[in-house]
Amino acid sequence: MTEATQGAAAIPAWLTDYDPTLDLILEREIEAPREILYMCWTTPEHLVHWFVPKPHRVTECHLDVRPGGACNTTFEVEGNLMENNGVYLEVVPNERLVFTDAYTEGWKPKPDPFMTAILTFEDLGNGRTRYVAVARHRTAETAESHKAMGFYEGWGTVVTQLEEYAQGLMK
Amino acid sequence: MTEATQGAAAIPAWLTDYDPTLDLILEREIEAPREILYMCWTTPEHLVHWFVPKPHRVTECHLDVRPGGACNTTFEVEGNLMENNGVYLEVVPNERLVFTDAYTEGWKPKPDPFMTAILTFEDLGNGRTRYVAVARHRTAETAESHKAMGFYEGWGTVVTQLEEYAQGLMK
Repeated sequence: MTEATQGAAAIPAWLTDYDPTLDLILEREIEAPREILYMCWTTPEHLVHWFVPKPHRVTECHLDVRPGGACNTTFEVEGNLMENNGVYLEVVPNERLVFTDAYTEGWKPKPDPFMTAILTFEDLGNGRTRYVAVARHRTAETAESHKAMGFYEGWGTVVTQLEEYAQGLMK
Repeated sequence: MTEATQGAAAIPAWLTDYDPTLDLILEREIEAPREILYMCWTTPEHLVHWFVPKPHRVTECHLDVRPGGACNTTFEVEGNLMENNGVYLEVVPNERLVFTDAYTEGWKPKPDPFMTAILTFEDLGNGRTRYVAVARHRTAETAESHKAMGFYEGWGTVVTQLEEYAQGLMK
């Protein structure tokens, strides 16, 4: 899937004040029901299997799925551990999940937050789901750097891993 | 009430990672039940009467009291209009209210947020409430500037106005 294709993702109706210099959007139709996808996103024992592009792996995961609850993961990337601590901002089971690194638990603001992610899971019928992930950034520089770090490729790979993992759960 | 007294406010047990260079705390016992105080905080028709130190006044107020909902007010200060747009982060009716200017509606991050406010309303019995307001900041500079702008005096004056207004509602 090319970056151009991804860049052409429809702008979701709920995305207020959309700004192409600040917001990155990934859209994908997935052959799995949204309840399973949501469970994979919100349960550590499932999340660790698909959340980072292989062969990188999640070494720790603590999720407290409520507004203000921790959304903490640690990755191992080429022998280095990377901590990603944040909180959930909005939780609508099976439909919508918003999280950010702008805060850690207790609403402690981080001086230099990277992004805020909004995920939506739309039921397309027949066990299929339209999955939309929007990453919103504070500045054009941050958005540009996220894009340069491989947002479309990385998040795309992760969705493919999620789809495969979710399908494995249904067998 | 002196700044020294305010600075001695107890650190609430729920305030994780407290940092005196980043967090400002105001505590007050109020002669009004917390249900009334919470209503005054969450209803535009009440909020406009006490929310800014008089003779300044609130000219507009739009509140959508849910995580991600708008918490927008406009003040008139010496003839100038000041817009303060933000969102609620956490809403526990009658007990706890968290809001910030770090986002506007739709979880759009603001490049330079000022603060995140956590309010708690504790029932002390006999129609009295322990009111704690914590302002958390991203940087020591922001916290220092909030203090220099008169955090303790300003928020203190506003609590006195809130108490008087709430008592007026109960007559």
